[in-house]
Amino acid sequence: MAPSGESSSNNISAYGATRSTVKGQPLEPEEVRKMDAYFRASMYLCLGMLYMRDNVLLKAPLQVEHLKARLLGHWGSDAGQSFTWLHMNRLIKKYDLDVLFVSGPGHGAPAVLSQSYLEGVYSEVYPDKSESEKGMQRFFKQFSFPGGIGSHATPETPGSMHEGGELGYSISHAFGSVFDHPNLITLTIVGDGESETGPLATSWHSTKFLNPCTDGAVLPVLHLNGYKINNPTVLARISHEELQALFVGYGWTPYLVEGNDRESMHQAMAATLEHCVVEIRKIQKQARESQKAFRPRWPMVILRSPKGWSAPREVDGKLLEGFWRSHQIPITDVLTNPAHLKLLESWMKSYKPEELFDQDGKLIAELKALAPTGNSRMSANPVGNGGSLRRPLQLPDFRDYALKDIDPGISVRGSMTNMSKFLRDVVKENMTTFRVFGPDETESNKLAEIYKAGKKVWLGDYFEEDKDGGNLAVEGRVMEILSEHTCEGWLEGYLLSGRHGMLNSYEPFIHVIDSMVNQHCKWIEKCLEVEWRAKVASLNILLTATVWRQDHNGFTHQDPGFLDVVANKSPEVVRIYLPPDGNTLLSIMDHCFRSVNYVNVVVADKQEHIQFLSMDEAIEHCSKGLGIWDWASNDQGHEPDVVMAACGDVPTHEALAATALLNEHIPQLKVRFVNVVDLFRLINEKDHPHGMPDRQWKAVFTDDKPIIFNFHSYPWLIHRLTYKRPGQQNLHVRGYKEKGNIDTPFELAVRNQTDRYSLAIDAIDRVTSLGNTASHIRERLIHQQLAAKQQAYDNGLDADYIRNWKYPKKE
Amino acid sequence: MAPSGESSSNNISAYGATRSTVKGQPLEPEEVRKMDAYFRASMYLCLGMLYMRDNVLLKAPLQVEHLKARLLGHWGSDAGQSFTWLHMNRLIKKYDLDVLFVSGPGHGAPAVLSQSYLEGVYSEVYPDKSESEKGMQRFFKQFSFPGGIGSHATPETPGSMHEGGELGYSISHAFGSVFDHPNLITLTIVGDGESETGPLATSWHSTKFLNPCTDGAVLPVLHLNGYKINNPTVLARISHEELQALFVGYGWTPYLVEGNDRESMHQAMAATLEHCVVEIRKIQKQARESQKAFRPRWPMVILRSPKGWSAPREVDGKLLEGFWRSHQIPITDVLTNPAHLKLLESWMKSYKPEELFDQDGKLIAELKALAPTGNSRMSANPVGNGGSLRRPLQLPDFRDYALKDIDPGISVRGSMTNMSKFLRDVVKENMTTFRVFGPDETESNKLAEIYKAGKKVWLGDYFEEDKDGGNLAVEGRVMEILSEHTCEGWLEGYLLSGRHGMLNSYEPFIHVIDSMVNQHCKWIEKCLEVEWRAKVASLNILLTATVWRQDHNGFTHQDPGFLDVVANKSPEVVRIYLPPDGNTLLSIMDHCFRSVNYVNVVVADKQEHIQFLSMDEAIEHCSKGLGIWDWASNDQGHEPDVVMAACGDVPTHEALAATALLNEHIPQLKVRFVNVVDLFRLINEKDHPHGMPDRQWKAVFTDDKPIIFNFHSYPWLIHRLTYKRPGQQNLHVRGYKEKGNIDTPFELAVRNQTDRYSLAIDAIDRVTSLGNTASHIRERLIHQQLAAKQQAYDNGLDADYIRNWKYPKKE
Repeated sequence: MAPSGESSSNNISAYGATRSTVKGQPLEPEEVRKMDAYFRASMYLCLGMLYMRDNVLLKAPLQVEHLKARLLGHWGSDAGQSFTWLHMNRLIKKYDLDVLFVSGPGHGAPAVLSQSYLEGVYSEVYPDKSESEKGMQRFFKQFSFPGGIGSHATPETPGSMHEGGELGYSISHAFGSVFDHPNLITLTIVGDGESETGPLATSWHSTKFLNPCTDGAVLPVLHLNGYKINNPTVLARISHEELQALFVGYGWTPYLVEGNDRESMHQAMAATLEHCVVEIRKIQKQARESQKAFRPRWPMVILRSPKGWSAPREVDGKLLEGFWRSHQIPITDVLTNPAHLKLLESWMKSYKPEELFDQDGKLIAELKALAPTGNSRMSANPVGNGGSLRRPLQLPDFRDYALKDIDPGISVRGSMTNMSKFLRDVVKENMTTFRVFGPDETESNKLAEIYKAGKKVWLGDYFEEDKDGGNLAVEGRVMEILSEHTCEGWLEGYLLSGRHGMLNSYEPFIHVIDSMVNQHCKWIEKCLEVEWRAKVASLNILLTATVWRQDHNGFTHQDPGFLDVVANKSPEVVRIYLPPDGNTLLSIMDHCFRSVNYVNVVVADKQEHIQFLSMDEAIEHCSKGLGIWDWASNDQGHEPDVVMAACGDVPTHEALAATALLNEHIPQLKVRFVNVVDLFRLINEKDHPHGMPDRQWKAVFTDDKPIIFNFHSYPWLIHRLTYKRPGQQNLHVRGYKEKGNIDTPFELAVRNQTDRYSLAIDAIDRVTSLGNTASHIRERLIHQQLAAKQQAYDNGLDADYIRNWKYPKKE
Repeated sequence: MAPSGESSSNNISAYGATRSTVKGQPLEPEEVRKMDAYFRASMYLCLGMLYMRDNVLLKAPLQVEHLKARLLGHWGSDAGQSFTWLHMNRLIKKYDLDVLFVSGPGHGAPAVLSQSYLEGVYSEVYPDKSESEKGMQRFFKQFSFPGGIGSHATPETPGSMHEGGELGYSISHAFGSVFDHPNLITLTIVGDGESETGPLATSWHSTKFLNPCTDGAVLPVLHLNGYKINNPTVLARISHEELQALFVGYGWTPYLVEGNDRESMHQAMAATLEHCVVEIRKIQKQARESQKAFRPRWPMVILRSPKGWSAPREVDGKLLEGFWRSHQIPITDVLTNPAHLKLLESWMKSYKPEELFDQDGKLIAELKALAPTGNSRMSANPVGNGGSLRRPLQLPDFRDYALKDIDPGISVRGSMTNMSKFLRDVVKENMTTFRVFGPDETESNKLAEIYKAGKKVWLGDYFEEDKDGGNLAVEGRVMEILSEHTCEGWLEGYLLSGRHGMLNSYEPFIHVIDSMVNQHCKWIEKCLEVEWRAKVASLNILLTATVWRQDHNGFTHQDPGFLDVVANKSPEVVRIYLPPDGNTLLSIMDHCFRSVNYVNVVVADKQEHIQFLSMDEAIEHCSKGLGIWDWASNDQGHEPDVVMAACGDVPTHEALAATALLNEHIPQLKVRFVNVVDLFRLINEKDHPHGMPDRQWKAVFTDDKPIIFNFHSYPWLIHRLTYKRPGQQNLHVRGYKEKGNIDTPFELAVRNQTDRYSLAIDAIDRVTSLGNTASHIRERLIHQQLAAKQQAYDNGLDADYIRNWKYPKKE
C-alpha cells in the first residue's frame, strides 16, 4: 500500500526554486534580458487586448474612457503560451526549423495574437492593424469586441488551425498535421484543464501511429497552469512521481520546467526546449538513415508556471496570480473602482512599454530581431492555412470500377466491397496525401481491399503472430484506433494541414463525435468569411453497419440520428448522401473526394444488396440528386395514384418490394417510384445550395397524391426538410422510430413500419379510390407479414424475403 | 533517448510461463481442480449459447440441426471474464464481501450469463430457464436469437447495470455505483479495446474523487486480451515498464497476472485478487478508524490471458485462440463444414460436461458449493437492480424558495441563483443519496450556493491557497472534473445503483455526451420491458450558459441542438423543459427530482432576467405545460389577430418585447401571448404521453391565425413537433439558425431573426388586415432595430434593450 495523497509536503506548486530535468544555462545574460523584454511586450499586448480601446501606449494617465465598456477574454494561460512561443523562436532561428504552433487552450488567444502581432504577420495580413500606435489601438479594440474577433484562436488568427473553443483535440489535431510532413514540428500547448477530457487523455497514445521516417514530430508542452475556471486541475495535484510515470506510460519522455522566477525559468526553458528539439532530430536521423522506423519515447515538456503569471500575486488580500481568479479578466471592476484602475495602470507600466515599443508603437528593432522571418514565423507557417498547400487528389476513373450487367432489382452485389477497390487505388495514387481513418472497423466494414495499397500504421510492438493476416506496417496508410475521437481529430488535423482523407465508422457510434463534427463545421464555415483562408479538402465520413442491419447487435447499435445533428449545421458546409446501390456509391465517393470545404456524410450498408442502376444511370441519378425510376414505376405518361419514395439502400429495397406487392395485388394502381440520393435536394433552393424549387418538387412528387416515403433515419428529418412543400400534407414518412431489439432485419423493419407490407398497406390506406378491394388486399398483406415474421422467428434467420427477394421482371 | 518500440524481444504475449506480481499459491490442489471445473462449466455454457439450440448436454453426436441457423455472439473475452468472476466468488465467501460485477466488454455477455446461470440466479429470475436440460436448452436458444436476449449485458441480465454495448464507460459507471456505498466493491472488467476510448482513458483519474471513509471501492481488472475485432490493442503492445508506469501515473497500483497455463494461472489470480481485496479493506480500515480520508494508490489487476482462451490455438493453420479471429463466433462454418462441426463437438467435449452437470443438466453439488448464496451472488446483488434500493428524495417545499412580489415583465431576478438555494437544501436533506455533477462550471453557472451544503469532492493534493475560496473537501457532494464523459458516467452509475442526482453543464458542450445520453435512454427504455427491474431516479440535465448569451464566446459556444438528439429518443423516457423564469424553474426542478426513469433536460439561462409569474401562477403554468398569458395578451374575449408564442427564457423576453412594440404601434391589433414550458406538449397526444389533442391545441394557438413562435433552439424542431397540427401552415418559427459570431446578445438575436423587431415585423407581415399602416410601422421598426445595433457596436455593450428593458405597464 502506497498512500500518495498525503503529499502537500511534496511541494508541487510553481512557487519555489526553479526546477528542471534538463540542466544548463544556454543563454547569455544579454539574451535573457532581451527574451524577457520580448515576453513583457507580449504580456503588455495581452493585457491591452483585454482592457483597452485607447491610449494604448499609456502616454496619458489611464482613464476609464480608455477602457472597453465590456471586459472579456482570458488571461490565465497567456503567459505560459507566450513564454513557450518566444523560446521556440530562438530554436527556429538556430536550427532553421519548420514549426507550427497549436494552442490547446485556445481561450488564451491573446498570447497567440500578441506573438503574431510582434512578429509582424498580423499587420501583413490585416494592414489596418499596422505596427503603429493607431494599428495597436485597432488591434486592442477588436479583440472580444462585437463584430471583431473572438477570444479563442479563431480562423481569423494567422497561423492557427486549431481554435481551442471546445477542449480536447489539440494533440490529435497536432498529430494529424505532422503525418506525411517529415520536416514539420508541431509545438502543441496542452492545457491541464483540457487534459482532463477523454479525447485528450487517449490521444497521447498517438505515438504508436507515428513513423519517424516519413512523419514529422509533435512536441507537446503540457502547461500545468494549476487551475481551470474555478477548480484546481487533476494533473497539477498529483505527485511528481505519478506525473512522470503517467507520461512514461503514455510513451513519452517528460522534461519538467517548473517555477515562477523569470530569469531562471528562461534558462530552464531554453535548455529544455533545445534538448527536446535536438532529441527529435536525433531520433529522426537515426530512423531515416537506417530506413528503420521505430517508436522512441518522444520528448515532451511539462511546464509548471503560475496561472496568470506576471499578474499581481494578490489583489485586496485575494490571490490572483497563481490562482483560478486569473482565468479570465484578472481585475474585473476597473471601470468602477478607481483604486483598481490605478492598479491596472501600474501593472501595465511594470512591463515598461516605453522600453519595448517606439513612440509610434512599433516593436524596437533589437526585439524584432529575436523573431524568425518570413514563413519561418510560426504565425506565418503555411500549414496553418493548409488549404494553400492542398493539391487535388489523383483520382482513378471511378467508372472503371462499375458494377456491370446490372439487372435492376435482381442483381445482388456487395456495394461496399466493390467500392473498396476504388478506395484502394485512391490510396495507391496518393501515397503521401490521402489516408483512411477508422476505429478498428475497416475490415468489418468490408474495406479490407485498401490494405493492398496501404496497410495499417502500427508502431506498437510486433508479435510473431502478426504475420497471420495482421496487415500491420510501420508505413501504412490506414489509421485504426478504437477511439472515434482520435480518428476524427487526426483526420481533421490532416485535412486542415492541406491533405485529404476519409473516416469510416459504424453508424451507431458516430454520435460519439457529434460535438467534434459540429466544431469542424463551425470552423470551415467561419473560414469562408476569412479572405486569406484557402479552402481545405472536405471531411468525408462514410457511415456503415447501419441501423437496419444492426438487428443482431440490438438496441444499443441502432441510432441513425447523426444526420439530424449534421442537418443543423450551415448549408454552406454540409452535404448528406444516401446512395441506394453500388454504382451510385462509387459516383458519390468520387464527388466527395473532389469537393472542398464540406463535411460530406455518406450512408451505405456493407452487406450484399440488390442493385438498381448501371454506371451511366447512376451518374445521372447522382447528378440530379433524386429522380423517378421509370423501370420501377407504372405511371408512365399518367398521373400516378401514389408516389412510393425511398432514401437509403435498405429502405429503397423495401419500398421497391412494396411497389411489387402493389403491382401484384392491384395492377391497375399507378405507382410512381422515386429515389433520393442527395438528401438536401428535398429542401427549398432558398434554404440550401442543393435545394430544388417547388416547381421541380411538384414534377417529381406531385402536390396532390399520397407520398409514402421510406427513410433510412428518423422520419421527422424528412418532414423538417420538406416543410412548406406543396402537398406536404400528403407526405407519410416511415423511418427508424426507436423501436429496436435483438431481431431479424425483417422484424426490425416491421416494428418501425418500414417493411414492404407496412408500406404497401400505407399506400392502400391513402389511396381513396380503391373502395372495397382495399380491405381484402389489406388483410392478405397482414397475413403475409405475419407469416414472414413467424418464419424468421422459427429459424432465427433473416426472413427469406430480405435475403433472397428479387424484383419481379415485368412482361 | 530511450527507444522502447524495439521490444518484440520483450515477450509480452500471454504465451509464456505464468507471471504475476503477487507471489503465492493460496489454493489447495483440490480447490484448483474444482475451480477449473467451474471454469469449464462456464466455458461450456458460453459455447453452448453461441452455437446450440438442442442436444445441449451432447448426449447424442452433434448434428447441424442442433445448432442455430444464424450464429451470433462474442467469444473473445468470455474466458477472462468468467475466470475473474469465479475467483471473486471464493473471496466473497471467504471475506463475506458485497461485490457488484461490471462487464466493460459487455459484448462478452456469455460469461456473465453463464455465471448467473451457474449460481442459480438466472433460473430464479426466469423460471423457464431452469437448472435442467430443458432449461439449459431454452437458455442457449434465446441468446442472440430473434425475440430473445441480446449479445451484451443487456437489462435482461441479472446483476447488470452496465450493458457494454457502446464502449468507454465501465470505470465511470463503477465509480458511480460505489459513491456513498461504503461496503461495496465493484469488480470491473475493462477491455483493452475499451481502454483506447477517450472516456475510459480519462476515467482512471476517478480515484481523485473517491473518499475511502464513506465510499466503497472499485477494483478494476484490465483485461489485456490482446485484440479488438481486427487489430491488436495499444495497451497489449507496449512494454511492461510503460504499462506499469501508466497505471501508477493514473494513481493505481497495478498487479500483473499473465499467462495461459490454467493451473498456475488459478494460483496467480487467487493470490492477486485476494491481495487486492485485503489491500482495499486495509485502506478503508485505516481511513475509517482515523476518520482521515486520503488518496491511496488503489490496487488493480492487469490480467493478460489469451483472447478466446481455451479455444483451439489454431484451426486449419490459422490462429484462433490468442488472436483476433476468436473475437466473435470462433469457428464460423460449422453449419456447412462437417470437419469443423466435428471439431466443435470435440472442443465442447473437452470441457467434460458430463463431469460438471448431472444427467438432467444441473450443476453438480460440489461445484455449486463454490458460489456464494443469496444476495452475495454477484448476479443477485441488489445494486445491479438499483431501482429496488431507491428511496424518494427528502425534498424541501420548493414554494418556500419562491421569488416574491413579481411584477410580470418588470421584476428582474437571477432565476438560477435563486434556484441554487433550493438545490442547496436538496443536498442538505439528502446527504448520502444526492450529488451534483458538472465539468468545472457549477460556480460559473451560478450554483455556488450548493457548496454551503456540500463542497467539491477532492482527494487530490491540497495547497495552502485552497483556503482562499477553494470549496474543496474530502467529503463534498459536488463532483467536478473537466470531462463531461466522466461526470455523466458517474451520475449514470450513481442513479443506476439507486440514488439521485443532477448534471449541470454549459449548453454548447453537452453534445460531447450525445452518445452516452442516447445509450442511457435506450437502457432505461428497455428496462421498462423487464418486469423485475425497479425504476431508477431520472437523469436530470440542467443546461445553462445557453446560446443566446454566448455572444461573447462566439460561434464555438453556440449550439442548442442537444434537444434534437434527445427528441429522437423514445417518448417513454425523455422530457424537455424550458422554464421562462425563476418560479417556473423551481417548479420544474422539483418535478424532475420526483420523477423516475426519465432523462429530464432543463434549459435555463444563468443571467439575471425579467420575471413573469408568481409561484402560484408558475405551478399552474408548469402543470399545464403551456398556456396563454392573459396579462401579456390583449385579445381577451376575442379571437386574436396574431399569436405570439415563445419557448425558452430569452426567446420569451424578446417575444414579450415584440408584443409590447405591436401594442405600442398598432394598439388595435389583438395579440395573444403564449408560453411553452414543457416542449412535448406540442406533440399530438398519440405520439407522446405529454402531448395534447388537436382540440386543446386549437384553443390555444387557433387554426387560422398566424403564429409567430420564438424558440430557444434550432427552429425546425418545432415544425417537426407540430407536424400535422391544424393550422400548422400558419406557424412561423424563429430560432437559432447557426448564424453566430462574437457579438452582442442583441446582434446575435438579429442575425437569427429572434429579436423583438424581427418578431414584430414577422407579425405585421403575416396579418393581412393591416393595409397601409403596415409598411409605415415596418419601416419604423427597421429603423429602431438599426439604431439599437449601432448603439451596441459603438459601446461594445449589450444593447440597453436587452439588459434594461421592461414590459410597459398597462393602464
